[in-house]
Amino acid sequence: MKDRVSISIENHIADVRLIRADKMNALDPAMFQGIIEAGKQLKEEKGVRAVVLSGEGRSFCAGLDMASMAASGGANPSGGRAQKLADRTNGNANDFQYVATLWRELPMPVIAAVHGVCFGGGLQIASGADIRVIAPGARLSIMEMKWGLVPDMGGYALWRGYVRDDVLRELTYTNREFSGEEARALGFATHVDADPHARAMAMAAEIASRNPDAIRLAKDMFNKLPDRAEDDILMAESIAQDAVIRTPNQMEAVMSQMQKRAANYVD
Amino acid sequence: MKDRVSISIENHIADVRLIRADKMNALDPAMFQGIIEAGKQLKEEKGVRAVVLSGEGRSFCAGLDMASMAASGGANPSGGRAQKLADRTNGNANDFQYVATLWRELPMPVIAAVHGVCFGGGLQIASGADIRVIAPGARLSIMEMKWGLVPDMGGYALWRGYVRDDVLRELTYTNREFSGEEARALGFATHVDADPHARAMAMAAEIASRNPDAIRLAKDMFNKLPDRAEDDILMAESIAQDAVIRTPNQMEAVMSQMQKRAANYVD
Amino acid sequence: MKDRVSISIENHIADVRLIRADKMNALDPAMFQGIIEAGKQLKEEKGVRAVVLSGEGRSFCAGLDMASMAASGGANPSGGRAQKLADRTNGNANDFQYVATLWRELPMPVIAAVHGVCFGGGLQIASGADIRVIAPGARLSIMEMKWGLVPDMGGYALWRGYVRDDVLRELTYTNREFSGEEARALGFATHVDADPHARAMAMAAEIASRNPDAIRLAKDMFNKLPDRAEDDILMAESIAQDAVIRTPNQMEAVMSQMQKRAANYVD
Repeated sequence: MKDRVSISIENHIADVRLIRADKMNALDPAMFQGIIEAGKQLKEEKGVRAVVLSGEGRSFCAGLDMASMAASGGANPSGGRAQKLADRTNGNANDFQYVATLWRELPMPVIAAVHGVCFGGGLQIASGADIRVIAPGARLSIMEMKWGLVPDMGGYALWRGYVRDDVLRELTYTNREFSGEEARALGFATHVDADPHARAMAMAAEIASRNPDAIRLAKDMFNKLPDRAEDDILMAESIAQDAVIRTPNQMEAVMSQMQKRAANYVD
Repeated sequence: MKDRVSISIENHIADVRLIRADKMNALDPAMFQGIIEAGKQLKEEKGVRAVVLSGEGRSFCAGLDMASMAASGGANPSGGRAQKLADRTNGNANDFQYVATLWRELPMPVIAAVHGVCFGGGLQIASGADIRVIAPGARLSIMEMKWGLVPDMGGYALWRGYVRDDVLRELTYTNREFSGEEARALGFATHVDADPHARAMAMAAEIASRNPDAIRLAKDMFNKLPDRAEDDILMAESIAQDAVIRTPNQMEAVMSQMQKRAANYVD
Repeated sequence: MKDRVSISIENHIADVRLIRADKMNALDPAMFQGIIEAGKQLKEEKGVRAVVLSGEGRSFCAGLDMASMAASGGANPSGGRAQKLADRTNGNANDFQYVATLWRELPMPVIAAVHGVCFGGGLQIASGADIRVIAPGARLSIMEMKWGLVPDMGGYALWRGYVRDDVLRELTYTNREFSGEEARALGFATHVDADPHARAMAMAAEIASRNPDAIRLAKDMFNKLPDRAEDDILMAESIAQDAVIRTPNQMEAVMSQMQKRAANYVD
């Protein structure tokens, strides 16, 4: 992992960076492995309350590194015995999907800070974050059709909650490039900011100042929302609140607000 | 109900107001009961074709009245034997959810007219309306996380049809306040208007001039849409049309249009 | 079909036009039959990679031709034995729905180019396209409530992927007319363009230059997205990619990109 992804944890925030800057963080087998290992580590970090995901250098991620993937013979990046893409190597996903969907699986919120190019697999990785802050001049594309392929790194499952059906169809069929500014109107960008990393870190600090138990329960609700019916959603809301109300961290949230001081939560 | 909610019915429109103006219509046990009773009454009002829901005084609703809820020992507002939030006291909901979801259950459309503050439970109540008209300077927030809690008054079930996944996550995790103007871009506001009550009443008058049977069938379709598969939706459309076509009220709609006169429907 | 719908196929693009220009392409029994026949023909056109659907003359489609539908005694346009709207005459749809939903069933993308009026059934037909390009001055309406009816030509099933719940409720209850310009903000228009047909043809040419196998697989995924759960979506993505990767057309896409030349696909 260490030569592809760096993790720096401070003040309950994990600053996660793709660090293959000389290749604009293109996805080679080592990058797939690095991201999956980073996800496994973050899942166990009890003290981490928010993650900021960004790319070192000029870009977030240029997408699949076709040359090095071809050189690997298309082998499964995690080294397992997957023979075809339909083989599930990580829960309900294969490795290619899991680098995007694992950000949803993390118990704490993930904010992607996107600048430079964000193409194909790179866009799908950013799409797995809870929230996206994108530089106005960033260049994005659902790139797969350029190579005669369909998007298959979790995009369909991730985008259905925030990008319109007709927009997805156009962008997929034509692999048209769009800017960070346009990404706001299209639904890909939660915020557009000239310094996406600083903005994402500020938002992460906000989130880290909230009751971490409630944050995790809220995220879990959002993850399950698209596949739940109304009755289940209403019940799940209540079960989540029953689980958090009158617990020490929730009472600390109230007390710290009343006393206008920073809260001290137990992670 | 009478000291918390007022209902004035005229020209087939129910003008419903939260009337605890000295507390910015904050939700105390009496307010919960008042809203639930108002819903029960409106459900039986055969002549009411549209409802406008607003708040008396400076604001729509400031959210939960923490002091008086605490004083009540957290008892179930409807006085039943609910021991925890997961107990269903009204169909698929508890009392806290039902003050928001009952507006969907009403057979006629509900337009929320929002001004001033609209926080936490107040926002979820407005979210249960079919349509929201919001003043540009209104102040809104998914407030629960401020108190270390998760939103649990039906918000998740109501918002999934009109607010993007990433927007909901940010607003829930950070309890960031947003204006009526911003609410338009975020999906919470159907319309932004300096006089939301007047705009909502005008829209209600439009709706009240349409065939009330078709309006009720159309609303019922929208309510069920998120949980239905395509085959069921197509069939339900046809069943609804079979139920309304060539009935006296539908023929009256056609005749009154042809004769350029107001329609006389039987409610 | 020939006096209601024309199909001109060139460069892998089918330019499909409603040609009852003297009646603003209003839907009479012959138009229903013409559209259904056009759909059947297009489904079998292996060489067609994109369809552009537009209206000849001043408008896209004025909606139902009430006079001629009444004259036909409300008979099922396809001449079958349907007694009521709930009878399914085309798969999961009746004839009235099928003229809208068949555009989704076509294996290749459909771009609707909308100008002039686009009311009621006309709007629902356009809503079945993958992508909509609309003239800024076009006039649109979910018109049914004007006649005391509910929308029942597939609208509910089609709109759920791209129009907000509150917007649909308002537009359905009030049958308020909106412009092409407003349609962009409301979600109905993918693009607004002064010359929608030219813009749609240019986009169709883009799509026709891509691997037709991948385009068809991508479209099939989008069609099924609203009714699938996450596990199924992730699996379907992988199965689609397994089906297209390393096939001759996919390798031709890569080779033509590398060699900066037009691709030669086998349809």
